[in-house]
Amino acid sequence: MAHGIVDVARAAGVSTATVSRALRGLPNVTEATRERVQRAAEELGYVPSPSAASLASGRTRTIGLITPWVAHWFFANVIEGAERALRAEDFDALLCTFEVARGWRRTRVDPDVLRRRVDGVLVVGMPLEPPEVRALEALGHPLVFVGAGAPGHVTVGLDDVSTARRAVAHLADLGHRAVAHLSGEPNDTLEWSPAARRAEGWRAEMAARGLPCAGLEVHGHFDVAGGRESLHALLDRRPDVTAVFAASDEMAMGAILALRDRGLRVPQDVSVIGVDGHDMAEHLGLTTMVQNAQEQGMTAAAVLLDMITGAPVPRDVLFPTALVERGSTGAPSPARMGA
Amino acid sequence: MAHGIVDVARAAGVSTATVSRALRGLPNVTEATRERVQRAAEELGYVPSPSAASLASGRTRTIGLITPWVAHWFFANVIEGAERALRAEDFDALLCTFEVARGWRRTRVDPDVLRRRVDGVLVVGMPLEPPEVRALEALGHPLVFVGAGAPGHVTVGLDDVSTARRAVAHLADLGHRAVAHLSGEPNDTLEWSPAARRAEGWRAEMAARGLPCAGLEVHGHFDVAGGRESLHALLDRRPDVTAVFAASDEMAMGAILALRDRGLRVPQDVSVIGVDGHDMAEHLGLTTMVQNAQEQGMTAAAVLLDMITGAPVPRDVLFPTALVERGSTGAPSPARMGA
Repeated sequence: MAHGIVDVARAAGVSTATVSRALRGLPNVTEATRERVQRAAEELGYVPSPSAASLASGRTRTIGLITPWVAHWFFANVIEGAERALRAEDFDALLCTFEVARGWRRTRVDPDVLRRRVDGVLVVGMPLEPPEVRALEALGHPLVFVGAGAPGHVTVGLDDVSTARRAVAHLADLGHRAVAHLSGEPNDTLEWSPAARRAEGWRAEMAARGLPCAGLEVHGHFDVAGGRESLHALLDRRPDVTAVFAASDEMAMGAILALRDRGLRVPQDVSVIGVDGHDMAEHLGLTTMVQNAQEQGMTAAAVLLDMITGAPVPRDVLFPTALVERGSTGAPSPARMGA
Repeated sequence: MAHGIVDVARAAGVSTATVSRALRGLPNVTEATRERVQRAAEELGYVPSPSAASLASGRTRTIGLITPWVAHWFFANVIEGAERALRAEDFDALLCTFEVARGWRRTRVDPDVLRRRVDGVLVVGMPLEPPEVRALEALGHPLVFVGAGAPGHVTVGLDDVSTARRAVAHLADLGHRAVAHLSGEPNDTLEWSPAARRAEGWRAEMAARGLPCAGLEVHGHFDVAGGRESLHALLDRRPDVTAVFAASDEMAMGAILALRDRGLRVPQDVSVIGVDGHDMAEHLGLTTMVQNAQEQGMTAAAVLLDMITGAPVPRDVLFPTALVERGSTGAPSPARMGA
């Protein structure tokens, strides 16, 4: 039976990104780990490189990377990780962004730009409509999703529902009852969208604790400015909120700016938690659910290369998230709770 | 005489990025501006789109983007801006990163990956050695640099020396005398590197004010962790420092973390100023020299497309920087000055 990079990672007890780095001579791997990975790969008969022989002729050695943004923390890190893993195999990355701007419905993903240009496609953090997925399938190349998946396709990402539930549980355990949620765009409601699944996790944990959700969810742009606007809008109608779960660290940082605008203290007046583990999160003292975006990109690229060389299509690859507590969350003050 | 996008921008009194957006139907341009730009383009006979007719046959409609990183603020924004401008003209962006890691000398840029694949090359924030530049020139395609330039080639970027001088002048005007500088990698000393030019500006302004520089410059990685390590190393030998000019906002944020590690207050004990205008700078209360990286990317792409269609090669395009004062800089405390 043929094995893929996910099997090697499991056998060696390391991440798929470490397998990628170890077998491709990239930095940031110790010699001991490199040897352990090489042994596991040999035992499983895993060949990391789509060699000339293993590739059908007419290959382009190019992968299409489809994404709405580059300049957001998650996207920049996934793209950087994927490109590094591809480059190590002499594959090129063709970058195709589809702008999502305020008051501007994004262009539908059109696979024509990729036809006869690529051997596979990575879709990064972009929930696609079913017709868009079908159009990509029609290209006839392997397809891997990072973050936002699509039914029936391999997705590298988080357990978004559980991640959200643990974030809300942290706030509820501190004593918060009016826990607001800053979610994504109102039209981003596909059930495989991370934003939709994080909202689902928030609702599930609130319900499990008997806390009402009505009027506590607000949609907005997935960045600092979006988080700031969203929380202002919410506090205008719900001044009793004592805690905020934001669907990304960038939105959480925007929420803290909104609180500062209003002279509210973090966490004495309002607690804030995000999702990501943004480079700035430590600096800002932000409590967050940390994920490793760069390794998700490397893994997705490695899985895609496996699929191109005919290795079996793996199941979804779930990355862990970990709660890192910092100063932005704390118990609600008795005064605010009585308000 | 043929005109390029830079001439249209000057005639319409807007940025080159606005010309790009206006003529290509992208969002974030008012109708009035769009009309003014269209009028200027018509008057100058400027055609923004490399139409099928204007392109020699055999074109790939693909641009190579060469960069060390994607997941840094400046790079992510330049790449996103450039890709958007290219996409609007149905040009693809082929992303090629050359990893720069700690203790790992980066791979020399090898243009072979681009041969017969691209119509032009954008080099983003990557100071190249002369042999690398010559190898890219040998591809025979137009070449534009963003950030770090190369002699004899068009560069879109800042006046780094003047930007650094104004940052140091701000600190000196507040009364600081021991102004340290956190610079880039020790081997990043090419005279056209922004890091080298910012260090040159720091030295020039210190000299102009009769302030000594000896022992106050420290080299490190161009990110948060690098800034933190650099400032720790510096403060170990120079505890008398009262102000820090960091070559990027990410390094400045690292410097603030180092000060926090040591129980020093910002700005009462040490003032910090950066360069960039990072999305997080407002949140962090960071004083910085703000630049617009996304517009630099859009402009560089537009200039490159002009060159591909045979428009005259423009001169360097300099973007302005503006001092934005926030809470991270202030007058030195008399106690520290006496230390």
